[in-house]
Amino acid sequence: MATNLKKQLTQIAARAKQASGALSNLSSTTKNKILQEMARALQAKRGLILKANRKDLAKAKAARLADALIDRLALNDKRIKEMSESLVQISRLNDPVGKVIRAWLRPNGLWIHKVRVPIGVIAIIYESRPNVTSDCIGLCFKSGNSVILRGGSESLNSNLAIFHALNQVLKKHHLADGIINMVGTVDRKAVDILLKLDDFIDLVIPRGGENLIKHVASLSRIPVIKHYKGICIVYVDKSADLSKAQAICFNAKVQRPGVCNAMESMLVHKAIAARFLPAMARKFNDAGVEIRGCPVTRKIVKSAKPATEQDYHTEYLALKLSVKVVNDLEQAISHTNYYGTHHSDAIVTQNYESALEFLRRVDSACVYVNASTRFTDGYQFGMGAEIGISTDKLHARGPMALEELTTYKYMIFGSGQVRG
Amino acid sequence: MATNLKKQLTQIAARAKQASGALSNLSSTTKNKILQEMARALQAKRGLILKANRKDLAKAKAARLADALIDRLALNDKRIKEMSESLVQISRLNDPVGKVIRAWLRPNGLWIHKVRVPIGVIAIIYESRPNVTSDCIGLCFKSGNSVILRGGSESLNSNLAIFHALNQVLKKHHLADGIINMVGTVDRKAVDILLKLDDFIDLVIPRGGENLIKHVASLSRIPVIKHYKGICIVYVDKSADLSKAQAICFNAKVQRPGVCNAMESMLVHKAIAARFLPAMARKFNDAGVEIRGCPVTRKIVKSAKPATEQDYHTEYLALKLSVKVVNDLEQAISHTNYYGTHHSDAIVTQNYESALEFLRRVDSACVYVNASTRFTDGYQFGMGAEIGISTDKLHARGPMALEELTTYKYMIFGSGQVRG
Repeated sequence: MATNLKKQLTQIAARAKQASGALSNLSSTTKNKILQEMARALQAKRGLILKANRKDLAKAKAARLADALIDRLALNDKRIKEMSESLVQISRLNDPVGKVIRAWLRPNGLWIHKVRVPIGVIAIIYESRPNVTSDCIGLCFKSGNSVILRGGSESLNSNLAIFHALNQVLKKHHLADGIINMVGTVDRKAVDILLKLDDFIDLVIPRGGENLIKHVASLSRIPVIKHYKGICIVYVDKSADLSKAQAICFNAKVQRPGVCNAMESMLVHKAIAARFLPAMARKFNDAGVEIRGCPVTRKIVKSAKPATEQDYHTEYLALKLSVKVVNDLEQAISHTNYYGTHHSDAIVTQNYESALEFLRRVDSACVYVNASTRFTDGYQFGMGAEIGISTDKLHARGPMALEELTTYKYMIFGSGQVRG
Repeated sequence: MATNLKKQLTQIAARAKQASGALSNLSSTTKNKILQEMARALQAKRGLILKANRKDLAKAKAARLADALIDRLALNDKRIKEMSESLVQISRLNDPVGKVIRAWLRPNGLWIHKVRVPIGVIAIIYESRPNVTSDCIGLCFKSGNSVILRGGSESLNSNLAIFHALNQVLKKHHLADGIINMVGTVDRKAVDILLKLDDFIDLVIPRGGENLIKHVASLSRIPVIKHYKGICIVYVDKSADLSKAQAICFNAKVQRPGVCNAMESMLVHKAIAARFLPAMARKFNDAGVEIRGCPVTRKIVKSAKPATEQDYHTEYLALKLSVKVVNDLEQAISHTNYYGTHHSDAIVTQNYESALEFLRRVDSACVYVNASTRFTDGYQFGMGAEIGISTDKLHARGPMALEELTTYKYMIFGSGQVRG
């Protein structure tokens, strides 16, 4: 069984590698046309997709999965329409492939071009949301990469239905088998086998909870780009404009608390804590945010619960917030570098030196001055749809969009040069 | 013992991480001044370094290491002078840190800057050449990264002497302990322990033979950039200028056969094989190059030995060459993508379409038209000293110089923006 599975997955990966050659040279015009056809195919196959989804939902309910999980799993007309629109949007983004990053002429006449090319074969290992299936297919196809998808077992039927709808479009165009691939088994060994196929797969992107990512990172022989959690921190400096600070902190915590770029911890300079915290706490209180504060915070905000050391290490993804009063910018920066997850952090200040110091010394993918951390997002950055927000430092950091799904090669135009 | 070693290495790595914060914000002026002092320190401590090297040499001879290995290990006045000059050259290169890769204004007024920053802590695991010690220290220091060095056991005394000479300069400047670090034990477990310290080390670069690299890649929990072997291929097209082709192939094979960008395989279009091969073979013969050819080659070049399948997979690093006559460009491209190691490959042709087709479809770090593969080198590309030539696709591909030793972060300048 395990041998069969290994053989089957090796075959899928080898075919994906094979297909990636032709795919990498497909013109943008063709790719965009196909993406738009894929968008229509999702709508046309809506009935089949919803039917498959009902199967998954029935199983999930029988297995008594949590309501939140069942909600993430559920598809309806509106969600399929959104998936379809997302493919149309991807078709409208600039194609990164073929872009000359830089070109220069050497003294000996060699003309060196550093050019963006697809990475090759990307494996994506993800959990329950079925829309990830079409999003990842769209992004990988547009950036010229073959993709191998391995979704969660609870959404297998939905994923397969979406996959088949999109793959039929590729078949209609007589494109190579293996451009998009789905691992159609719930066998948990499949992931471990995929992670060893470094002869065929160039990159692995796990999308899901911390345990999934850790598992993939520890087993993979293939480079992995991780999208870990976001413990995002906003520091309200002593020179902050307090009404801006209130708006930014409220937005960062409350606008969408369940996502990785929401604020989980708020630091407040001691000189303004007594002026800033009472009104801020009332606003949070009205919105149902539970505050867990340090001793100084609790003297000012009577309703705050005590924050433990663990609170500052916690990504709540909920209407909860840890608060700490700090002595100075220095303490704010070291707290952020130590307790934060290097995702998105902000300072609110009117002081020029403090702003620059925070920008330079906070070691995070996105460092903000006077703006909400909620902007860390491919669309908000103007980069378009993203495959995730990388918390790694190698290859891609922060929003990972089409360009980050490419690598480069050097094309060198010579006229007979040899090395002396 | 193993527990002690783990504790000791964790301490080194944690200190390196700690030190990387201050290092990342050191000015170019200061870094360059220190690099020049390091260059002088190497010369000043020449006596001590040569003494340590004599210890290593005596051990190596007692252990009957191969002459080639002993030669690589040996230091003398000239080699120390070269190491010293190399540090001066690094001091003169542009500092990539702080470079704004791109900056743009969003419609909501957010001003986004994508800025180069150091990676953090880099571990370099390498084999016998002691000059790697000072080169890597120079490159990592200039790019603002803390470095942990783990050299081969046969050069431990030389490496330590070089390390101490350079570290004394940092001490004189009262810079944080831990900017440069050397693992001063020959215990082989040290590498395996280092590779698990992903809380502190951001990147691992193995430099050495295939076995070392494979070992590191299979065990590491930290991202690895691999510098695998180079089976570089030159294809002489039917439309080649044959005198250019002869000069390029000769240079690619003979100028320095022991390096990764030397040609190991030559493909020749069948239409010109009978015209091109005899004179080319004579030239190779005069230079002592052994030719291993396909059946067609052997009909034309009587002295050629038969090439086995294995020959086309072999990096000789010596005056040996596999030769194959191919039917067309298509076969040349598929052979190159299949047998090559995606390092550096070249086409020699006067035909415009063939040149572009080869450039687009050969999936290698460096693809050349009408030039020797020997140019794949940081200095030859105008990028300056390099830490190696990456055969990976993620983060860095081809020559890996100062810029590739950095990552980026987004600095976002706001004025109170919140997300709607």
